[in-house]
Amino acid sequence: MPKNLTIIIVEKDRDRALQIVDGLNASGDHAITVLSEESGLARRIAALDPDVVLIDMASPSRDALEELALASGPMDRPVAMFVDHSDGALTKAAIEAGVSAYVVNGLQQERLTPILDAAITRFHMVSRMRSELAATRRALEERKTIDRAKGILMKARGVSEDEAYALLRKAAMDQGRKLAEVAEALVSTAGLLS
Amino acid sequence: MPKNLTIIIVEKDRDRALQIVDGLNASGDHAITVLSEESGLARRIAALDPDVVLIDMASPSRDALEELALASGPMDRPVAMFVDHSDGALTKAAIEAGVSAYVVNGLQQERLTPILDAAITRFHMVSRMRSELAATRRALEERKTIDRAKGILMKARGVSEDEAYALLRKAAMDQGRKLAEVAEALVSTAGLLS
Repeated sequence: MPKNLTIIIVEKDRDRALQIVDGLNASGDHAITVLSEESGLARRIAALDPDVVLIDMASPSRDALEELALASGPMDRPVAMFVDHSDGALTKAAIEAGVSAYVVNGLQQERLTPILDAAITRFHMVSRMRSELAATRRALEERKTIDRAKGILMKARGVSEDEAYALLRKAAMDQGRKLAEVAEALVSTAGLLS
Repeated sequence: MPKNLTIIIVEKDRDRALQIVDGLNASGDHAITVLSEESGLARRIAALDPDVVLIDMASPSRDALEELALASGPMDRPVAMFVDHSDGALTKAAIEAGVSAYVVNGLQQERLTPILDAAITRFHMVSRMRSELAATRRALEERKTIDRAKGILMKARGVSEDEAYALLRKAAMDQGRKLAEVAEALVSTAGLLS
């Protein structure tokens, strides 16, 4: 685990918060903020934009758990959630909300570092997959749009597919835009012209 | 956690194996197999095709950890790995090898069920993402191949893009194959014809 993390701890119980801070300080020189109130949590976490969020809840209801998990921004940063008790449905809800570690009855000082290590690695792995999926989807959509734009040009100007593609590429270069953007503009406005 | 799982435990220490079996039996009527030898592990796990694999290693070397993680088929089923000690590099290696839960110094009977619950949910979430990524990549590749096949037909037969597509579709229907398969066959053999 890096030694200079910005960490937010969400914890209502003052004694437990101090224990967690002590446990974390053993592994490095971190900038730690403890938030003990739930009001405005999402806004405050987003503003601080920490490297890691650690949430401790004794016995959460499902609503409270999902609310806290989402407020902590589990798609933007690793979130480790500790609870004293859980059941299968609660565990499922936490993981599907995107928390990178969900630990039942396991909040001990000496276990904090390996758990955060695992949460950080898992977060980056899932993030990579998510970006890859988004990029592949975007490539597919762009290809569809470029095909539609070529079809429109072929029909409107009576040109071949290669010529239509060359027209799109020239327009993109002239305008300093991406080919997919020019194609998108053409597809979205072609109806106006005919 | 479902009550009738097929579970493989990989554990050399007989006493610890019995403790794990007891812990698991408290949560349901599972079919549990304990494997205490590493030889032929991948083959035996693949043959049994369990719902979950639980691996316990006291202090693994990085090589041993990666070997066991991969032998357990972490892309095919949830794998939970327990170790007594770890460091950041070992934790990273385990998670990147695909284990669904990596637990340091946390093998207690009463914690087994929530950990396996989490591992199962996480495995299914990551599997869904992986299938989605594979399907999107396939769609993109198929689209590229169909475009290339259309281009070949347009040139060879002097037809329009729409006509080329219609020809491909008719061939696919006549042969009872997918359009992408016909396009792939055309692209891969077109060089022979010209």
